[in-house]
Order: sequence, then C-alpha cells, then structure tokens
Amino acid sequence: MKFCDALNKLPGKEENGLFEKNFLRTWDMSDDDIKAVARGACALKSLRDENVSPKIFDSGIAVSMFSKKNTGMELAFASGSDLLGLTIIDMDRKLGNTNINETAGMASYMADALGICESDFVEKSSRYIKRIADSVEEAQKNGVITQKPCVINLGSDEDTPVQTIADFQYMAEYFGGIENLKGKKIAVTWAYSPDGTRSLALPQGIISLVTRFGMDVVLAAPEGMELMPGVYERAEKNAELSGGKFTRTGSMEEAVADAEIVIPVNWAPFSFLEKRTELSAANLGTYIDLLEHELRENNKEFINWEVTEEMMEKTKDGKALLLHDLPVDVTDINCIRGEMTAQVYNANLPSLLKEAGMRPYVIAAMIILAKSEDPKAAFETIAERATKRYF
Amino acid sequence: MKFCDALNKLPGKEENGLFEKNFLRTWDMSDDDIKAVARGACALKSLRDENVSPKIFDSGIAVSMFSKKNTGMELAFASGSDLLGLTIIDMDRKLGNTNINETAGMASYMADALGICESDFVEKSSRYIKRIADSVEEAQKNGVITQKPCVINLGSDEDTPVQTIADFQYMAEYFGGIENLKGKKIAVTWAYSPDGTRSLALPQGIISLVTRFGMDVVLAAPEGMELMPGVYERAEKNAELSGGKFTRTGSMEEAVADAEIVIPVNWAPFSFLEKRTELSAANLGTYIDLLEHELRENNKEFINWEVTEEMMEKTKDGKALLLHDLPVDVTDINCIRGEMTAQVYNANLPSLLKEAGMRPYVIAAMIILAKSEDPKAAFETIAERATKRYF
Amino acid sequence: MKFCDALNKLPGKEENGLFEKNFLRTWDMSDDDIKAVARGACALKSLRDENVSPKIFDSGIAVSMFSKKNTGMELAFASGSDLLGLTIIDMDRKLGNTNINETAGMASYMADALGICESDFVEKSSRYIKRIADSVEEAQKNGVITQKPCVINLGSDEDTPVQTIADFQYMAEYFGGIENLKGKKIAVTWAYSPDGTRSLALPQGIISLVTRFGMDVVLAAPEGMELMPGVYERAEKNAELSGGKFTRTGSMEEAVADAEIVIPVNWAPFSFLEKRTELSAANLGTYIDLLEHELRENNKEFINWEVTEEMMEKTKDGKALLLHDLPVDVTDINCIRGEMTAQVYNANLPSLLKEAGMRPYVIAAMIILAKSEDPKAAFETIAERATKRYF
Repeated sequence: MKFCDALNKLPGKEENGLFEKNFLRTWDMSDDDIKAVARGACALKSLRDENVSPKIFDSGIAVSMFSKKNTGMELAFASGSDLLGLTIIDMDRKLGNTNINETAGMASYMADALGICESDFVEKSSRYIKRIADSVEEAQKNGVITQKPCVINLGSDEDTPVQTIADFQYMAEYFGGIENLKGKKIAVTWAYSPDGTRSLALPQGIISLVTRFGMDVVLAAPEGMELMPGVYERAEKNAELSGGKFTRTGSMEEAVADAEIVIPVNWAPFSFLEKRTELSAANLGTYIDLLEHELRENNKEFINWEVTEEMMEKTKDGKALLLHDLPVDVTDINCIRGEMTAQVYNANLPSLLKEAGMRPYVIAAMIILAKSEDPKAAFETIAERATKRYF
Repeated sequence: MKFCDALNKLPGKEENGLFEKNFLRTWDMSDDDIKAVARGACALKSLRDENVSPKIFDSGIAVSMFSKKNTGMELAFASGSDLLGLTIIDMDRKLGNTNINETAGMASYMADALGICESDFVEKSSRYIKRIADSVEEAQKNGVITQKPCVINLGSDEDTPVQTIADFQYMAEYFGGIENLKGKKIAVTWAYSPDGTRSLALPQGIISLVTRFGMDVVLAAPEGMELMPGVYERAEKNAELSGGKFTRTGSMEEAVADAEIVIPVNWAPFSFLEKRTELSAANLGTYIDLLEHELRENNKEFINWEVTEEMMEKTKDGKALLLHDLPVDVTDINCIRGEMTAQVYNANLPSLLKEAGMRPYVIAAMIILAKSEDPKAAFETIAERATKRYF
Repeated sequence: MKFCDALNKLPGKEENGLFEKNFLRTWDMSDDDIKAVARGACALKSLRDENVSPKIFDSGIAVSMFSKKNTGMELAFASGSDLLGLTIIDMDRKLGNTNINETAGMASYMADALGICESDFVEKSSRYIKRIADSVEEAQKNGVITQKPCVINLGSDEDTPVQTIADFQYMAEYFGGIENLKGKKIAVTWAYSPDGTRSLALPQGIISLVTRFGMDVVLAAPEGMELMPGVYERAEKNAELSGGKFTRTGSMEEAVADAEIVIPVNWAPFSFLEKRTELSAANLGTYIDLLEHELRENNKEFINWEVTEEMMEKTKDGKALLLHDLPVDVTDINCIRGEMTAQVYNANLPSLLKEAGMRPYVIAAMIILAKSEDPKAAFETIAERATKRYF
C-alpha cells in the first residue's frame, strides 16, 4: 500500500469517529476507527520513508506513565510523538499512588497525548486508565484545559491496542491489504517461557481484534490457561458477524496446521492473576513469590509448547508469517527453553523488528486522528507542504 | 484579560528590566518586573488557547535540577520550556554534590534556561541557587558561554517565585486585573498536614509578594509556627508602601472572616528546619527522625486547622477563591485528617487545577523576558507570524 | 577560524568519507574524516554564536545509552543532538543485558543517532558498541530500517573520539589552525586521583589521534601504568608517518618541560582492568573491592604526580594550555590530594569549560557528516536560510 492509497481512504471532517477520543480498548472502537488508525500508520510510514515530515505540532508535550520498564513501548511512544512534533515527558512510574484527579489534571494542562502502560493488576489497571481518561474529560468540561490530550493505552491487563493494531496493519501490508486478511488462518498460541507471569493483554487483544475482520482465528493453550471471562464469547460473536471463525484447541500442532500467521505468546492463567492481585492488595508479598513459584513449576509440564522449525513446517506451505510483541524468550539465546528456537527466531528477526517498527506510526496515527477534526485535510497539508524530515 | 491587552502592556526595548536576569526571589524584582512576568504569562496563555504558537527558539535546551521529586513543577518547567521551543534535559538530582562551578558551566554551555528546585535545607538552598547563578554569570564574563541561560528558582527554602507569580496572575484574572487586587482581603493560613515538615517558601513568598500590590494580607498560624527572621518586617514594609495591610493572627477563623481569597498551607517552624539542617550537616539521621516525630506529635494539637465548609462560609459572601500549590493533603482522600475537607477540595478542584495550570506560562514568560531584549517586539512577531500550534 | 573558513573546507558530495558511517574509534577514520568532524564542529559553533540555527532535522530522535552516570557527556550528546533538531531519548542504563539485536533494532527504528557510553570492562565495551553498530547495519540491509542512525562512541574502554576530537579542535582554535599543531610539544601525563580506577580511553585516544598530525607527543606515567597492548606501537607508527614524535617517560617534570599543551589524566593499569574484568565475569565482587583497595594503596606512592604551579612554570614560557576531560579531582576542592592544585584549576577553569563546550558541536558535526551525503551543501543551505536560533 502506497502513501497515496492510504491517504485517499483516510476519514475527512464528518467521517472521523476518533476526534477528541481516547484509545483504551479496540472493542470500544468501530471497524472504521480501526481501519483509520491502521491506514494512518501506513500513510505516516510512507511519508517518513520518503523523507517527508508529518509534523503537525509546532510545540506541545506527550506525557508517558509506565508502571514498569517497557523499553520497546517507551521508544515507540517517544518516536511516534516526536514524529508529530511533540516533546516527550516521562512521569514518575509510581505516580499511580497519588490522587488520580490531580495527576490527570497536572499531566494534561499542556499535553496533547497521554500514554499509559499499567499492566500489573488484573482489571485494576484498565480501571486506572479509564479513570485517568475520565478525569481528563472532566478537566476539559470544567474549563481547566482548553485542548484535550488523547489517552492511549500502551498496555493494560485487558488489551494493548497499539500492539494489536500494529500487528493488524503489518499483516495487511504483508498480505496486500486489509481485505485480503479475510479467511486467512491465524494461530494464536500459548508458548512456554521461564517467566510465565505475563499479562493477558496480547492474546485477548489479538483475538478480539482480528475476529472482526473475517479471519479464521485459532487459539491454542494448555488446559487451565484461561483468559478473562467474556473474552471467548466476544471473539465468537465477532467472528459470526464478520464471517470469520473462532475456535479453541489444546494443541499447538493443530493450531498451526495450515496457518498463514502464527503468534506465539506466553500468558498466565486468569485465576493466577486474580489470586496475585488479591495477595498484592493484602501486602502478602511472600505468598506472591510462592504463587509464582508454583505457576512456574506447573508450567514446566508445558515445556514443549515451543515454536520449532518442525512446527513452522506444518504451516501453510511451511512459510507462515511469525509475529511476536517482543521481547521474546528464545531457547539458547536468553533462556534454556523458551517460546521459540534460535533457528526460528533468527530466520524471522528482520520481520519481527519490522512488525515492532509499526508501533510508533500507530501511536502517531492515533494522535492525529484524535487531535485533527479533519485528518484527511491534515494529511493533504502535510503532503503539499512536503517539508523534508532532514536534509 | 485578552491577549492584546496584555500584549500592549509588555515592556519594550528600553523598559525590560529582566533582560539577561535571573528569577531567584520576587523581592529582588521591581513591581514592573513582576507585572511583566504576570502579563507575559497571560499573553502566552491566550496565544496557546487560540492555537497560536509562541515558539521563539528554533533549538536550545532547558536544564532542570530537582533535589527531590516534584511532579507538578517538573511538568510546569517542561511544558513552559517546550512551548517556546526548548528541549528539556533533567540533570541528576544529586548533582549538587559535585563542584558547583563545573556543574553550572556544563549545564549552561548550550542552555537557555536553568530551573532549580532545591528545598531541603534552610538558607543553604537559596545560597546554592545563587551560587549557580553567579557561576553562570562568571562563565559568561569569561567567554565560556556566548549566551546566558536564565536561572529560575523552582522552589527553594526561602521563596518560590513561579508559584507566587502564577497565583498573583491567577487572582488578577479572576478579579479582572492586577489593579482590582488592591484592598482585597487575602488569608494565608497554616493548615494541618500529617507530613508537617514542608518548606517556608510558599507562605513567605506569598506574603512578600502580594503586600506589594495593596492587598489586605492576614497571616494565620498556631503559636510557634514562625517563618524566617525578617519576613514579617518585609511584608509590613511592603504593605505600608503599597497602601495595603499586613496583620498576623493565631486564629484561622479570624483570618478567613470576610476574606476574598484563602490560601491554606502547611509549613514547619523555622526553628525546626534550622535544627534539622544542623543535624543533617552532622550526619545524625536518627535524630532527624526523632525531631520529625516530635514535630508531628506536636502538630496534632493543631488538627483543627482545617479548611472546612463552615470555614469557607465565613469568607466574603461565603465564596472566597481558594488557592493551593498542590499536591494537597485532603481529609478522607489521601489522609485521615488534612489541610481541607473532601467537600471543599472537590468543590474547588477545577479552580485549583487552573491555578496550577498558570505555572508553565509564568516560566515561559520568565524565559522570554530574560532572553529577549525587546519582549514587546518578540510578542508582536509571534502574533504577526501566527503559526498554528497544531493543525 | 571563522565560520566561512571552516565552511569552505567541508567535504562536498564525492568527498564525504563519513556518509552513513559510525564513530567508534578515531583510528578507523581517515585524516580527512577527522578534519571534517573538527571543522564541522567549528562551523556549527560559529553559527550558534551568531544566532543562526543549524537545524537540519524537522523531527527525529537521538537515543543515548550510558552504562553509568556521565553528566558532562550526557549533556553534550543532548545539546548537540538538539541543535540539529533531534529529540533525545535516554534508554535504560542496563539495556546491555538484553538481546543485542533486539536492542539495536528497537533503538534504531526511528533514531538518527545512537550514542553509547559503556566503559566498564576492558575490551568488552568496545566489542559491545561494535556489535550494536553491526546490528544496525544488519537491520538496514534487511529493510527493517530505511534510514540508518549513526552510532557514536561516547566513551568505551578503548577510545573516546568525541572527547579527543573536541580537544583536537580546541587546540586547533587556540593555536590558529590544525596545521599550526605540527611540531608542538604535548605532554599527556598520568596524575594522581584518589579514585584510581579510570578507563584508558582518554590517554589511548589522545596519543593515537594527535600523533597523526605531526605533534611532539610525550606520554608520562609511573612504572607499571601500562595502556593496552599495541597502543604505543600505533602512536609510534603514526608519528613516523606524520613527521611527529612519540616518546615515553617516567617523569612528569620531563614531560611538561617546554610543553605547549599539558593533559593530566588518571588511569588504572591495563593489568588491573583485565583482572577486574575477570573477577566481574566470575561474580566475585568482594575480590574486586580488594583489588581496587590494593590499587589505591599502591597509587599513594605516586601522590606527587600532581600538576602544580611549579610544574606549569616548566612549560613553554610558563603558559602551556591545560586540557582535561572533566570532572577533575582537585586538591583542596573535592579531595585532599588530586590531579592538580586549586590554583592551577582556578586559573584554567574558564578554558577547561570552553574545551568541554566543544563536545556538543563535535557530536552534531558527526551526525551531519553521517546523515548528509553532501555536508557542504547542507551547511550552505543552513547559511542561506539563516534561521535565527531565537528571537
């Protein structure tokens, strides 16, 4: 997809459903909204590759709040915001402890974007991001701020829309357009990692998103690796509406058979995360250690849930597109046994890096769509102006 | 006050008393200097609200040094500097330990603004900021730097000019102009906080500033909650010169009666801060803990120094403007008993956030006044150019 | 040297040997490359002093990675990058522990410059920086990135090219041109510091660089303070080729006699650094403490290796140019006995700060030369455009 193609499909003044909106969960957005973000990302990437600067801000700040280190997403938020002319301010990671209204108010005085990554506790983190977003809207209503920053979920316990839309657009580019994804088999499969305590955001987010675009989605996981209640039902309903499919299996082999896309991902079962949240609220750190130890011991049973070359050969023509949100635990590279073998990793690394490289553009697209009433006109101005990004 | 009104009153080439100056304490500045900063802030805010970019720097850095976390002021310095086109670099919080001349020299090579918040030790922090400012001037004299950054006190033990001028301008806007502040009763009152060890900068700064503009200032505090020597005398002298009033009382009720503005603020008595400085210099940390414990125990006697709805009803028409420098300790929200009740807090939060939102503009105004020989012309260029902040 | 002189000598399209290159060690660069960086720095400094903005980027990021705090170099990288329009993102200091290919890939998606300071372990740090640079090139080859960031060594165990080229250019300005350095005697002398564990980068880098330009280089050190194998030989060979001289002595007096430039610098012997690297790899922290203790005890024997006023009087006409990479350990200022006396330090501080002030321009020059195929044209555009840096 070339820049001009994406450009023609961007929403104009009356069509932009994202103006002054936030980006908390993809299931709060319409299909057109999703496509607008994906196409905006595509357009921005083409522009930058052609050395055209899409700077739409002459000044302004983008504030990020991360509950823990997440190098990839931090860089993505920083470069996506910078691309548009925003300066990045990273607020204290422990900010969540202070009064949420003051936090939101202070962070949004002069901010055009607020990126929040808060994945520690089941459900609580989603509610936290939502409350920040509500406080910002309140501040706007009360005249505290004259321009509303958009709130972007950079990863919560429930969803991670930047990553999933980046994956969606990356697949669309790979297969020649969003419409070509229809009917393609995609295997989202649990994979073994020595950590084992990861959030549910990615598997939940992916199956909730791609089932909306007619894909044939198979979710594979060992018994007991449950997602949050209601997620499977949403995926099924989506598939039904879009003419796609959503099935579950207890076998990675079955999932990857003839798949055109494979996404290995490690997560902890919902019951574990719920229990850990409880213990954490009760300040029972020692028992959290024990709980995590038990989970890891239990996970050893599933050590064969690894993407190997043999596994990849079972995919369509043996050459499925491999996706991962990085960083990945690779056998023999950074652990004894991980999500994939070194061969699979090395063969796919350039593609994995390209996939991750889509995230800054998705973030920038979100900001343009939320801040410009008429994104089509904004992109036209960018194209006409044709300011070189560097000379 | 509209942008154009403020603009007309900005100092021109021969009138700018702040060119190449620093902003350490308001009492080192003339009344015209204070007004110029307040009006500059007003003009900048109007511009941004009208989506006009006041960027006067094409590149350049603003360096901040905070001795401890201060989210609100950090964001204010960052967004105020960004508004003008400066990139923010936050230096190590413990930088104060290194050779002060090297620190100042290295920080100012290419900086256009140095913001310093150093409130730990009585008097020492003011002297520290002054020495940085002197070193910068020395560096300029010696040809080390060809352009001098302005040094901005973001909070010391003595004064906090960004906060007080922000409050001053916020009151001026609220009451329709600086001249309308004349004769207005303002109650600056000690209020209970479980912390209890806060600096004297705000109460000292406020009473030193507003007494210069004819206000009727009442300072209320429990017995023994003394400010630094000489502060009351300065306030009295200011009031005498400006036709205002400065009185002290041991009763919050008395202070707020018929007041049009109420500023609750917690501080520790000067004798405590002095003692703590001594113990700190002697590395007697354990005794500091004991000293703070005793202070907190003693403060419990004054737990009724709380701004309640009943207290607010005693103010003029029961609707005084409530100011606070945030964050605030609120009863039932982030502590059992604090500076104000949740009702008072919630009713005033939008206004408190607007007040705090003035700080970035005050900082930006300081930078323009210190860097532009002719601020009036600079603002005229901004207005003519009319670059959109974002499109 | 005025801006226009430097400008005329900058490489044009066919002459730029640094386009898309990295800056890891000066001995990987040709003499013309070195001169191009030095002249670029000079041109950029003149521009800024004349309030002309050399911004060549409309957006873009510069990523820094420091293995430990280095305030001076961090500020230099930040202000040099900002001068060209890049936003600075400082990545986690411990990033080196993750998969190097992912790190490099993620850091370079949208970065135009990667600055790395990694001086902990002998040889390993150079290899680390080299591997990052290789991964970036790999990413470019694989189409992961469409524009390659240049990798800049901000200090490794082996070399510190930003500092040495800054010193080179500073000397050139001081003596009226690069050609005037020919035949000048420069004393690079070990000096006592209570720390004693510093890296070899500066002494190795300086003698490797200036011997290439016909200088008369004397390296003085107590017995046993060896540099890495091969460094002396390189310096000798350079001197032979350039018509300069390289000699070694065990006496500071002898080195500084009639010298026109004196560079005191503390370093730890290679054998110590090698041993420490071994112990560190084996996680034997306690024995590292012991090893460092022994080194410091041993160093006390050389406590007289201090630059005093008497020492400076032995130099040519008693007024040699004193250089240092800062921060410096000064007797009676930040230690009991250090590299130089307070008198020598105070008399030379303005010059030392000017020397350090050259670093941001060297970094900016490196970035322009690596990113612009035709640096001469880029500078001409900057000069024609003549955008004011601030108004």
